[in-house]
Amino acid sequence: MYPSSIKKVIECFKELPGIGEKSAERLAFTLINFDKNKLQDFSDAIIDIKNKIHRCPICNNITDEDICNICNNKNKTDNIIFVVEKPKDIILFEKLNIYNGKYHVIDGLISPLDGIGPDDINIDSLLKRIKDNNVEEIILALKPTIEGETTMQYIKKILENYNVKVSKIATGIPVGTEIEYIDTMTLELAFEERKDIS
Amino acid sequence: MYPSSIKKVIECFKELPGIGEKSAERLAFTLINFDKNKLQDFSDAIIDIKNKIHRCPICNNITDEDICNICNNKNKTDNIIFVVEKPKDIILFEKLNIYNGKYHVIDGLISPLDGIGPDDINIDSLLKRIKDNNVEEIILALKPTIEGETTMQYIKKILENYNVKVSKIATGIPVGTEIEYIDTMTLELAFEERKDIS
Repeated sequence: MYPSSIKKVIECFKELPGIGEKSAERLAFTLINFDKNKLQDFSDAIIDIKNKIHRCPICNNITDEDICNICNNKNKTDNIIFVVEKPKDIILFEKLNIYNGKYHVIDGLISPLDGIGPDDINIDSLLKRIKDNNVEEIILALKPTIEGETTMQYIKKILENYNVKVSKIATGIPVGTEIEYIDTMTLELAFEERKDIS
Repeated sequence: MYPSSIKKVIECFKELPGIGEKSAERLAFTLINFDKNKLQDFSDAIIDIKNKIHRCPICNNITDEDICNICNNKNKTDNIIFVVEKPKDIILFEKLNIYNGKYHVIDGLISPLDGIGPDDINIDSLLKRIKDNNVEEIILALKPTIEGETTMQYIKKILENYNVKVSKIATGIPVGTEIEYIDTMTLELAFEERKDIS
């Protein structure tokens, strides 16, 4: 029913998360009304993702330079490493502008049910960084799920042999949320990890 | 903060309807995980929209052939023309599989406030088609807004000089909708256009 070029672009959009048949059609029809330069730019941008984006050899962040802009930033201390699951997590924390150290992307969480073991996540290079640089603190910022907690426990255990402080970001009730909507697990953690009011 | 290739693709996604900053970021990060062939396909698909898609010289539908597949379909009668605003409307009606004639895309609605007059929509070629072919019926399927109604009235008026039946699709309460949620204009029309129960 659609011209084949449109069908093709609809199929491409449908591969993206949260985009179903109807949205993909709407997006494709929007493209038809774009001017030719814009279409060229869009096409080029996707090819650039293909050709230029790779992982930083130090922290495993995504980058289009040899070494990512964070590892390359002399103003950020090498002594603290923030351990995250995905490259996107780095962006989230960097936007907060509250942290001035380096990062390490482990690219996955230990999940025996999914067949993902300690060897499948990017930890060896973290250990090497700790040894080679004078790293004083590791902050684990993995999500508070069974997989995230397992992975943090695992990393904590391995790091016992290293002279490095290990912390993890706090779990609890998100700011501005009605307590009645919070799951029991979070409530329990919020209770256990209660803090003295200063 | 983002590598420039990612920034570029985020900007492109943000130009699409319904895609804000956060969605664009999510989509861009999905692309990073696509394999290289898929990225090449996506890029090519967009370029094909740029290079291959044009308007059908007969009905103004979008096509990647000389003449669109509907105008080219000998099984669809030339005697009835369904007049729609946009190429996408053709797809919507074709999917229903209830109509077996041709279409005409007028590409806009008369809207004096927006400076769009009768000369700005694609009606001359419709008149030519009516004259040249043995067209018996014109079905107006424009949306029931002030602009759509004005345009339908205008076309109806012009066609008074032609020996052709003119109808428009029905306005009323959509199937499965609670009547209390329907706007007063639609309710009025549904009342005025009430039908005897057969």
